[in-house]
Amino acid sequence: MVYLTRKAEFSASHYYHNDEFTVEENQRIFGKCNNPNGHGHNYTLDQRSGFVVDLKQLKEVMNREVLEAMDHRFLNKEVAEFRDRIPTTENLAISIWNRLKPKLQAAELHRVRVYETPDLFVDFYGEA
Amino acid sequence: MVYLTRKAEFSASHYYHNDEFTVEENQRIFGKCNNPNGHGHNYTLDQRSGFVVDLKQLKEVMNREVLEAMDHRFLNKEVAEFRDRIPTTENLAISIWNRLKPKLQAAELHRVRVYETPDLFVDFYGEA
Amino acid sequence: MVYLTRKAEFSASHYYHNDEFTVEENQRIFGKCNNPNGHGHNYTLDQRSGFVVDLKQLKEVMNREVLEAMDHRFLNKEVAEFRDRIPTTENLAISIWNRLKPKLQAAELHRVRVYETPDLFVDFYGEA
Amino acid sequence: MVYLTRKAEFSASHYYHNDEFTVEENQRIFGKCNNPNGHGHNYTLDQRSGFVVDLKQLKEVMNREVLEAMDHRFLNKEVAEFRDRIPTTENLAISIWNRLKPKLQAAELHRVRVYETPDLFVDFYGEA
Amino acid sequence: MVYLTRKAEFSASHYYHNDEFTVEENQRIFGKCNNPNGHGHNYTLDQRSGFVVDLKQLKEVMNREVLEAMDHRFLNKEVAEFRDRIPTTENLAISIWNRLKPKLQAAELHRVRVYETPDLFVDFYGEA
Amino acid sequence: MVYLTRKAEFSASHYYHNDEFTVEENQRIFGKCNNPNGHGHNYTLDQRSGFVVDLKQLKEVMNREVLEAMDHRFLNKEVAEFRDRIPTTENLAISIWNRLKPKLQAAELHRVRVYETPDLFVDFYGEA
Repeated sequence: MVYLTRKAEFSASHYYHNDEFTVEENQRIFGKCNNPNGHGHNYTLDQRSGFVVDLKQLKEVMNREVLEAMDHRFLNKEVAEFRDRIPTTENLAISIWNRLKPKLQAAELHRVRVYETPDLFVDFYGEA
Repeated sequence: MVYLTRKAEFSASHYYHNDEFTVEENQRIFGKCNNPNGHGHNYTLDQRSGFVVDLKQLKEVMNREVLEAMDHRFLNKEVAEFRDRIPTTENLAISIWNRLKPKLQAAELHRVRVYETPDLFVDFYGEA
Repeated sequence: MVYLTRKAEFSASHYYHNDEFTVEENQRIFGKCNNPNGHGHNYTLDQRSGFVVDLKQLKEVMNREVLEAMDHRFLNKEVAEFRDRIPTTENLAISIWNRLKPKLQAAELHRVRVYETPDLFVDFYGEA
Repeated sequence: MVYLTRKAEFSASHYYHNDEFTVEENQRIFGKCNNPNGHGHNYTLDQRSGFVVDLKQLKEVMNREVLEAMDHRFLNKEVAEFRDRIPTTENLAISIWNRLKPKLQAAELHRVRVYETPDLFVDFYGEA
Repeated sequence: MVYLTRKAEFSASHYYHNDEFTVEENQRIFGKCNNPNGHGHNYTLDQRSGFVVDLKQLKEVMNREVLEAMDHRFLNKEVAEFRDRIPTTENLAISIWNRLKPKLQAAELHRVRVYETPDLFVDFYGEA
Repeated sequence: MVYLTRKAEFSASHYYHNDEFTVEENQRIFGKCNNPNGHGHNYTLDQRSGFVVDLKQLKEVMNREVLEAMDHRFLNKEVAEFRDRIPTTENLAISIWNRLKPKLQAAELHRVRVYETPDLFVDFYGEA
């Protein structure tokens, strides 16, 4: 009944491309996001969990498991799980959940929210 | 004595590298920003000018001269003036000034501000 | 378990008046909002839905079904459902839900949030 | 060399119409803003002045001279100076300057900024 | 299915200290927050409830029950429930819930959110 | 003609009291801010300077000269210059200027801005 949410920011680049789509479909559906040189965002990550005793430990886990891997990276090329998965905001939220979940001990992870821009964000609550 | 400021957003990626520095100097001074794969930002552009009659025309100039060239681009590779100039926030502000200045007729350009993140921005007022 | 939220802004004016209240009651309960000339807001709309393949289609539906009808309008006079219903923030959220729900096909609508000001907003999750 | 800036918010509606333009010119230049029923904004006012001893007095002047006159009003119809002047953001900034300037005694007024939306604002520094 | 959320801000100071911890544990776990002179925040309170007829009454309850007690106070010394309970953001959210819940009549309280900083906030939904 | 601005946040508490005023004057002029237990803010500091080569060095100076001294402190009691000077937002801006100015070498300090709340801030440009 009590949730604590902590935000963090990171800057990364990405592009959208689905190997199962034709060149034209990729272009039509993803538009400017299909540019293979990538483009970037200041991502904001909200990590929400249950009762937390030790805020410093929580911050260390976020830094070590997420920010060190993703900050100032080209996600498609430099983050392992996006070699064969499009780094959409949805997939980024799921990836961050999978990175944080096993490392948070005292605090039960409840939700990961990722803002791609201030006007577009995704919430992931774990698998049903 | 009256200035009008209009904001616009664009997403782009870039990296920092100075050919006159050694590999070690580039790494020490630019840190994570030196990654040649690039990383990205949601840039915010503030364009400030004097009295403006026609707000729609102003918006069209910003879209055509700046956003079409820079949005969803890897600045170092895809924007001509950054082939031989590091796309720092300073240089980005100067480049946007140079793109807008000759195209604004009724409105005198007064300042270009570029936010790289909400916590870091540059103001350019033209050459002295 | 995954929700995508996209924001949009529109500017509109409205006033509060309940025909079943006396003049004095309308004045006491609604205060300055009871001015029949209307006053305005920069409304922010958050549209939250389930998994989304095609972000461009989603944006088109929001533009066509909501923004074209409400942006730069006096809601009480120019939007049909507010001829006989006060355009409170609650009713605005319900109206936007009813406009979006039948038009979103691939994406299941989950929540509509409407900010009247940065300090006051309403969430609607559909009828129970 | 020291400036203090205080913000305040108000909600009002307005529309754009220039009697010297034809119907078609009004429509072409002002677009949706030309709707005579009005539309609205959450305006933000920044009042900047020199050294201030008494912050409470400053707030009272803003409330009495500006917010009481403009908050929850249709500016074209209900604020005297906009009967024959379009309530553009420029004119609103000038009007607010003229209302505040003679009432601020200890504090020298330096700038009035008015945000019509978070992406569009005007600064007025007084007549040259 | 409809929730209304209203924000309010207050400024207060606090410090973190657990009598059951040693001096060293307090220092290690709470770090700079353990300074007994206190430090402060601009807290933001979100009060979310069900259907609301009378927005003015809602605001009066928030002002009287929460802001008058907590605004411009040293929470550990001047707010009764924090004499023997650390004013963490969690405990602050629970305290505000307990203050608002019995006073809201027409509107059912659904959630209290307290931001300690823009990057850290707690949600409380009442006891299970 | 080019300015770079970097923001930083810190949390501190303070109170307002002028020894030359009577108890009643202090109470009337400073109101709730006169509480000697202090109250707090999340202060935001904007440090603006000329051309900057080394962003990391700039950040280190801000951290060492300002944040280490002021973050999580009761300014009246724990920061030397506020033993005999009220830590108003004006005085805080002047103090931060005096701390930064002699330590910035390559970058010329141009302005210090301090936000006490999102609605109240002070700019200091140095002595005339």
